[in-house]
Amino acid sequence: MSIKILSRDDIFTEAPEWRRPGASNYAAMYSSVFGGIVTDPALMVMPLDDHIINRGDGIFEYFDIVNGFVYNFEAHLARFERSAGLISLDLPFDMDTIRAITLETLAVSGAKDCGVRLFLSRGFGDFGCDPTTPKKSLFYVVVILKSFEIPPQTYTEGVTAITTHVPLKPDFYAQVKSTCYLLNALVDLEARRNNADYGIWYDHEGHLTESSTENVAIVSREGILKYPRFDHMLKGTTLLRAAELAKGLVAGGTLKGVSQTDITQQEVYDSTEMLILTSAFFVVPVVKYDGKAIGAGKPGPVFHQLAGLIQKDKTENREVLTPIPYP
Amino acid sequence: MSIKILSRDDIFTEAPEWRRPGASNYAAMYSSVFGGIVTDPALMVMPLDDHIINRGDGIFEYFDIVNGFVYNFEAHLARFERSAGLISLDLPFDMDTIRAITLETLAVSGAKDCGVRLFLSRGFGDFGCDPTTPKKSLFYVVVILKSFEIPPQTYTEGVTAITTHVPLKPDFYAQVKSTCYLLNALVDLEARRNNADYGIWYDHEGHLTESSTENVAIVSREGILKYPRFDHMLKGTTLLRAAELAKGLVAGGTLKGVSQTDITQQEVYDSTEMLILTSAFFVVPVVKYDGKAIGAGKPGPVFHQLAGLIQKDKTENREVLTPIPYP
Repeated sequence: MSIKILSRDDIFTEAPEWRRPGASNYAAMYSSVFGGIVTDPALMVMPLDDHIINRGDGIFEYFDIVNGFVYNFEAHLARFERSAGLISLDLPFDMDTIRAITLETLAVSGAKDCGVRLFLSRGFGDFGCDPTTPKKSLFYVVVILKSFEIPPQTYTEGVTAITTHVPLKPDFYAQVKSTCYLLNALVDLEARRNNADYGIWYDHEGHLTESSTENVAIVSREGILKYPRFDHMLKGTTLLRAAELAKGLVAGGTLKGVSQTDITQQEVYDSTEMLILTSAFFVVPVVKYDGKAIGAGKPGPVFHQLAGLIQKDKTENREVLTPIPYP
Repeated sequence: MSIKILSRDDIFTEAPEWRRPGASNYAAMYSSVFGGIVTDPALMVMPLDDHIINRGDGIFEYFDIVNGFVYNFEAHLARFERSAGLISLDLPFDMDTIRAITLETLAVSGAKDCGVRLFLSRGFGDFGCDPTTPKKSLFYVVVILKSFEIPPQTYTEGVTAITTHVPLKPDFYAQVKSTCYLLNALVDLEARRNNADYGIWYDHEGHLTESSTENVAIVSREGILKYPRFDHMLKGTTLLRAAELAKGLVAGGTLKGVSQTDITQQEVYDSTEMLILTSAFFVVPVVKYDGKAIGAGKPGPVFHQLAGLIQKDKTENREVLTPIPYP
């Protein structure tokens, strides 16, 4: 066979065939490799020898921009810093600079409603595994427009879930938000093959943990909003925010209490409501689980009221909204 | 702060400051994203939304080129295909084409003694986790010159190892050579901090498994070459080749036998020789483990004879040497 040898111009100038599906959603990228921001999606690339590619040796965060404000920014930055520390991954800048770079990349993008991913990698210079060979950690920010419309029936009719049989990830990943998500991806794959929207993991003692990239909570028959301990799953920023906001539903009488506790599969089956919580979709009601109806088989009152509280929080609560310095 | 907005020319034309340490060792890259081969290291990049970056959703192989021949190519290709199948990752080409692309990339590089990495990723188009969103799997080949000299004392004086305390990776990764190697990287980190060359993992029953990216074998007091079962570790191509070649040492009387079996830590401490086996360094003698001398505290007869057999195999055995079609 004869494979084309490509020049820079072949790749980046002459009608690049590889300009790719989805690329039009990428509004801006900061890269500490380049030392600046690019807005052409063709330039949103990473050196092949970055250890986040070869070894999954890096961490990430995702969070939402709502009406031109970063929602819950400080909680995500705190987890980012904590994840880095737990794998002895030096930050290339102090946290104030990381905060400022993120905000400026958002400002350059001009996007008012979008998502942001931060990546921190061990660096490049070889394809080895050793984190101690001479290299500098690297920081990337990418601003992603929300091209997808969440189907409205997601919230009005609810979604479905199944118990996954994919092996549990090591507890270590409950502390560190690394990019080693292959098992999580296989949870999604299994769910799709079973015509379900989410797959749900249990720990070795049979207690509820989480979904592939989402937290899970239930409303018990006694009216308690229950969510799992953080022994085997990541501290979800949206879950923690929702648990805080749900206290208002206790005061209002919709809930009897909010409790972080062990939850068995039977308790999930018997729950009156089952909720998916994520930084991408915030709160989604599960109405069918393992083929069985949850509660009345439709979105319940806790979902509706909690979704309202989160909506209010992410649009009105200035304590958790950081303004972006648009030009 | 004010971050530079960069154009394509800023990045790729005008004295790119980010041309990076190590890049001069990268002789050629094939990318199915570009649909061709590049030889400028600045162009050896991956789109940021490739799921192998965001989710570790991909696999890899590494193997050696010796005197212009690929060593043990078919064993590596077979494992590549098997890894892909186990995570339902479609190959973008049939295996004959993957073989041909690899050989042609090597031919273009002109390199006669080097290493090759193959990557297969789920593809790009979004930053999600779901492997089933519309996308095409992607194939990358990179040819890496051996800039590093292996210090000669590695083989003449031997290396050191410690027992690692990094959590064991899930058994799933014993079957699939995915890029989710963060725990492996932390094994290396722990070893370096303890002034050791390698960290050694044991399974939950206390049996020897492997090092961060290497297999381990011992010579027992009874003169048996022992290596662990494949329940908790990847089938190492070099280990399997070495176990085959070691049969010659049984015939010659240096070994009493070759056995794949459970090995306790005490057996490792009591061994007369301890060997590290990898596609990068082939066979390396460990002379000190957890601060204790192994055997006589210097490279032993099995190491010397096995290294000779492997050297002969990788330079003379045409059954496991694939010629590269250099121009």
